Amino acid sequence: MNKLTRFSVSPLSDMTRQLADVASGRSDPDLVITGARVLSTYSERMLDDRELWISGGRIAAVKHAGAHRGKAAEVYDAKGGIVAPGLVDPHLHIESSMVTACAYAEAALLNGTTTIFCDSHEIGNVMDVAGVEAMLEDARQAPLSIFLTVPSTVPATSAEMETAGGDLTPDKIAKIFDKWPEAVALGEKMDFVPVAMSDERSHAIIAESLKRGRPVSGHVYGREFVAAYAAAGVTDTHEAIDREIANDLLEAGVWIFLRGGPPTTPWHSLPEAIKAVTELGASHKRVAVCTDDRDADDLLMFGQDWVTRQAVKAGMKPEQAWSMGSLHGATRFGMGDEIGGLGGGRRADIVLLDDTLKPVNTWYGGELVVEDEKVTSLLDETLSERYRYPDAAYHTVKLPKEIKLTPDLPTERVLAHCIRTELPGITLIHDTVELEHANDWQQHFDRHNLCFVSVIERHGKSDGNVAHGLLSDFSLKRGAVASSVGHDSHNIIIAGTNEADMQVALRAIEESQGGVCVVDEGKVRAMVELPIAGLLSDKRIDDVADAVRVLKLEWEEAGCSIPYMGFNLIPLSVIPEIRITDKGLVLVPEMKVIDLFEKV
Amino acid sequence: MNKLTRFSVSPLSDMTRQLADVASGRSDPDLVITGARVLSTYSERMLDDRELWISGGRIAAVKHAGAHRGKAAEVYDAKGGIVAPGLVDPHLHIESSMVTACAYAEAALLNGTTTIFCDSHEIGNVMDVAGVEAMLEDARQAPLSIFLTVPSTVPATSAEMETAGGDLTPDKIAKIFDKWPEAVALGEKMDFVPVAMSDERSHAIIAESLKRGRPVSGHVYGREFVAAYAAAGVTDTHEAIDREIANDLLEAGVWIFLRGGPPTTPWHSLPEAIKAVTELGASHKRVAVCTDDRDADDLLMFGQDWVTRQAVKAGMKPEQAWSMGSLHGATRFGMGDEIGGLGGGRRADIVLLDDTLKPVNTWYGGELVVEDEKVTSLLDETLSERYRYPDAAYHTVKLPKEIKLTPDLPTERVLAHCIRTELPGITLIHDTVELEHANDWQQHFDRHNLCFVSVIERHGKSDGNVAHGLLSDFSLKRGAVASSVGHDSHNIIIAGTNEADMQVALRAIEESQGGVCVVDEGKVRAMVELPIAGLLSDKRIDDVADAVRVLKLEWEEAGCSIPYMGFNLIPLSVIPEIRITDKGLVLVPEMKVIDLFEKV
Repeated sequence: MNKLTRFSVSPLSDMTRQLADVASGRSDPDLVITGARVLSTYSERMLDDRELWISGGRIAAVKHAGAHRGKAAEVYDAKGGIVAPGLVDPHLHIESSMVTACAYAEAALLNGTTTIFCDSHEIGNVMDVAGVEAMLEDARQAPLSIFLTVPSTVPATSAEMETAGGDLTPDKIAKIFDKWPEAVALGEKMDFVPVAMSDERSHAIIAESLKRGRPVSGHVYGREFVAAYAAAGVTDTHEAIDREIANDLLEAGVWIFLRGGPPTTPWHSLPEAIKAVTELGASHKRVAVCTDDRDADDLLMFGQDWVTRQAVKAGMKPEQAWSMGSLHGATRFGMGDEIGGLGGGRRADIVLLDDTLKPVNTWYGGELVVEDEKVTSLLDETLSERYRYPDAAYHTVKLPKEIKLTPDLPTERVLAHCIRTELPGITLIHDTVELEHANDWQQHFDRHNLCFVSVIERHGKSDGNVAHGLLSDFSLKRGAVASSVGHDSHNIIIAGTNEADMQVALRAIEESQGGVCVVDEGKVRAMVELPIAGLLSDKRIDDVADAVRVLKLEWEEAGCSIPYMGFNLIPLSVIPEIRITDKGLVLVPEMKVIDLFEKV
Repeated sequence: MNKLTRFSVSPLSDMTRQLADVASGRSDPDLVITGARVLSTYSERMLDDRELWISGGRIAAVKHAGAHRGKAAEVYDAKGGIVAPGLVDPHLHIESSMVTACAYAEAALLNGTTTIFCDSHEIGNVMDVAGVEAMLEDARQAPLSIFLTVPSTVPATSAEMETAGGDLTPDKIAKIFDKWPEAVALGEKMDFVPVAMSDERSHAIIAESLKRGRPVSGHVYGREFVAAYAAAGVTDTHEAIDREIANDLLEAGVWIFLRGGPPTTPWHSLPEAIKAVTELGASHKRVAVCTDDRDADDLLMFGQDWVTRQAVKAGMKPEQAWSMGSLHGATRFGMGDEIGGLGGGRRADIVLLDDTLKPVNTWYGGELVVEDEKVTSLLDETLSERYRYPDAAYHTVKLPKEIKLTPDLPTERVLAHCIRTELPGITLIHDTVELEHANDWQQHFDRHNLCFVSVIERHGKSDGNVAHGLLSDFSLKRGAVASSVGHDSHNIIIAGTNEADMQVALRAIEESQGGVCVVDEGKVRAMVELPIAGLLSDKRIDDVADAVRVLKLEWEEAGCSIPYMGFNLIPLSVIPEIRITDKGLVLVPEMKVIDLFEKV
C-alpha cells in the first residue's frame, strides 16, 4: 500500500455512494469492529453491544453487535472494550517536543490522538514562512491529521528588543492562508496587551484571518484584558489558569481549551480552570482540553488522553471528558462532521479503551496503527521514512568565528542587574546585586550564587550580537548548559561558570546546527541534537525521548535549579520581570533595554 | 441613514480596533443596554445585573450594570428584563408563508428571530436558478440575516412523474455555491430513498456541497434509512418525528432540529422527538429547534420564539431552550463566532424578553426594530421599500387558451382510482371506487362523497398538460378551490364540483399570475394573490395574513376537510399512497403513473 497519511482516506465527497452501499448492506465493509461499548461524544452516553462497519477508511455505520452477516475482510472483536473516536488536540506546538511532525505522530497515535491543531510558532520565529511551510509539508507526510493555526505573533516583540529569524507580517500570513488548506485558524495571538490596546499590526493580522472566515486563537492572562481581547475577535484560549478567568472568557464567547500538563509544571491549569464548570455550573459544551507543550519524554506519559482523564478526575463524566478531548475541539474548528465522533461518513479514527480510558488500540483512517499499546508493523514501517526538511533548515545556526561569551570583570564597585530564576521557572525576578571588588568572577559567583548567562544571535542577521548577563540562584555548579531553543527568537542561550566551557557548548551547538547540551571540563556530557532549525531532531520519538532523559539527568547533576524548558524561556521578553535577548537585558513591563552594570 | 440590512453592520475584520477601544473604555459605545439579566447561551446560566456595550452594531462587551460612566449616545434601561441573543432559525422555507424575504423579516423580528437559514426550494421548482437568485437578492435587501441552504432536490421526482419549472443539476448547484457567499449549506436532501440507494445524481449533488466544505441538510423518515443516509454525508435533519428516530439520528452524527408547529398540525414533532433528550438522556448540545413551514397568519403566533418555549414546556431549562433556539443552530452552520450569543465582537442581534421568554424588544445589528412588541418607525420605514422581483417572476403562470378541467362521464361501469384525503392532510389514501351508471357527475359525487381534482401544468413547458382525478372525502360542498402552490412543482391544482367554477378559479389565478382561491357560483369568494412565481405575495406580512385569514374562513365554509396547506401537498409525488401531478395519478410506492379509470 501507499504511505499512510491523512490523504490515505479519500474525501467524503468521493465516497458517499460507497458508504451508503455498505451502510445499507448492499456491499461489505472492509473491517468490522464488533463486541464494543461505544462512547458517544454526540449524546455523551455509553452504548452497549455495538459494532462499527468501516469502508475505505471511513465509518459507514454503527450497528448493533452481530448485525454484520456478510463477508468483511476483517473482523476485530473488541471483547466488550470501549470504542471511542480518536482524540483531537486543539492546541499544541510540535516544536516543544523537539521532533518533526512525522515523529510526533507516533506518540500521538500511542495516546489515541488522531488529529492535532498545531501552531508552528517556533519554526516561524527561526525560518519565517519557509519554516512554517516546511512543517506543513512535514505534516502532510505524517500518519496523523495535522492542521495549522497560523503563527500570529512572530516576532514576539520587535526588532528593537531582539533579533528574530522570522517576521510574519499580515501579508505573509494572508498568503499562508490562501496557499494551504491546512491553515484553518490564526494561532494564539500572544501579544494580548497590544491587541487590547488596538495595536495596528496586531489587528491587521487578526483581520486577515477573520476576512477569510477563519477563527482566531488566543492567549491571554489577566481578567482586566478579557473584554477587549474578546472584542478583538479572539474566540478560544488555552491560558485560562483559574476558575474566574475561565468563567469570564466563556461568557465573553471564547472557547476554553483546558490545558493539562505534568503536575509538577505550571502548565497544568486544568484542575483550577475546570471549576468554572464543576463549581460555577457553566455548560461544558464550549470547553475542550489540550496539551500545548510537552517535553519529548513526557509526551507518552502526559498525552491528550492523560489530560482527558484529568478532566474525569476533576469531576466530569467519562463521556463528557472524552467529548471535551475530541468532538468539542473539532466543533470549534468546524470539523465536527469529519472527526470527533463515530457518526456515519466520518474518518475511521478510532480508539479502543480500557475502563480507565487508557488507549489500547488506535485505528487511523481505518488502519490499525497501535495494538495492545504498541506500534504495529504498518505504523513502524510508515515511520521509518519520514519527511526530510529542506537543506536550509539544517543550516540555521550562523555564528561569527569569535565571540566573547562573558563580560569583563568590573574594575570597580558596580550594581549588576541580575536575573533571578525560581521555580516553576516562568517568571524571572529582577535582582540588583552590588558587586564589590573581586579577583575573579568565581568570587562574585560564590558570594551571590551567580553564574554567567549569554544570548548569541544565530540567524546571521547581525554582526554577531551577543548580550552578557548574570543569573542568580540558577545554582549551576560547574561547566555550562546551552540551548539553541530560546523562546521566541531562538537565539542561543548559554549559562556557565567559565568562558571555556561556554565556548565548548556554543561550538557543539554550532557543530550539530542546534541542540541542548550540558558541558563540563571541556567535554559535552549530554546533548540532544536539534539540527532542524536548531529546534527539532530528525529522529524518531523514542530516540529523542531517550536523549532528553539523559540530558535531564546531567542537567540536574549540574545543579540547574529550573528545568530546561524554563531555561529556554529566559530570552522570552514578554514575561515579567527581566529577560535577556541578543540585544541585552530587557525590563519587560517598561519594554526597555538596560545595561548589565550600573555605577554605584 | 442607509436602508437597514444585514450589511448595515461592517464585518468584524474591519471593526476589531474600534471594539477593543470601546471594551477597554478608551472610547464610548453607541448604545448601552443596562439593568439586564443576561441569558448566556454559552454557559446556559442567567447572569444578574449586567449591561451591554454596543458599538457599530456589534457587542463590544458585557459588563456589570453601572460599569459605563462615559457618554453613550443612548442608554436603554432593561429594568431587570432578560436580555438574550436573537434567535437563529436553522431551517425554514420562506415561501410557505407566501411572502417575500423582506416581508418575512417583519414577522421574524417581532418573534425575536434575527437570523434564518432558508431553503428556497419552492421558488427553485418554479423558476430554477433564476428564482433562487432572485430570493437571494430579496434576502440581501431584507432587515434580517438570511442565509441559504441551496435547494437540493428540484424536481422532487423526475420529468416522467411531473413537469417542473426547475431542474437544479449538480452543475447549477455548484455555481450557486461559488457565486453566493450566503449559500452556506446544501438544503434538505428530500429524496432520502434514492440517497440511501446510492443514486448517482443525488450523490453528485451532495458531493458539490461537501467538496466546498459545506454541510448537507437532511430530511428522512424511517429508522431503516438512517444509517445509509448519514453515511451519505447528511449531518442535520428537522424530520425526526419521534424519540427513537431522533435518538438514532443523533447517534449517527446528525444534528437534530426539533420542529415545532401549530399543535393542530402534523408538523409539531418537537414534543415527541425531544424525548431523546428528556427521557433517553442524550446531551442537547447538538439539538436545535426550527419552524420549517408556517402559514402567513400563523407566523406571528407560532414563531421560533414559540418553538423555543415549547422546548421549555417539554422539560428543558429556559437557558438550554434559548440556546437551542439560537447558538446551537449557529454552531451547526459554523457561525457561532458571529451570532447566537452575547460574546465580544458578535453582531448586536439582541432581544429583551419577559419572564416567559416572550420577546418584547428586538435590536437588529444594534438598531431597535421592535419595541414593546411593536415595529419601530425605523423598521416600518425600512419595510415600506421592499425588493421588487424581476419581471419574469411576475409571469410564471403560462396556460393555453382552452383547457378542459374535468373528465368525461364514464359511459359504462368503471373502477375509479380515487384520492382519499384525511386529516392531518399529509398521507393520501388510494381508494378504488366502483362507479355505477350515473346521469351526471353529481350523482357519483353524492353517492361516494367525491369531487373533481385537476392539476394543470403552468410552466409553459408542455402543450397544456392536464390530469383529471377524483378526491374522496374532501367534502367540498360547492364551487371550486384552487392554488398555484402545488408542491413541489407548483403546477395549478383545482378541486371542484363543476367545470364552470373550476374554470373561474383557473382564470382568476391566471389573471393574478398566482394565488389560492375559493370560488362559488362563478364568483371568487376569497383570494390570496401570489403574483411572484405564483408562490409569493408582494405585500407586507399583515396584509397577507389578513388575506389568509379570510381565505381560511371561506375554505372552511366551502366544506374542505383538510386545510389549504395540506391541499397544496396533493401533487407531492413523494408521499404515500397516491398523488396527482400534471402527468396523471401517481402511485408513490411503485412510482408509476396510472389511469383514472379501469374497466371492470
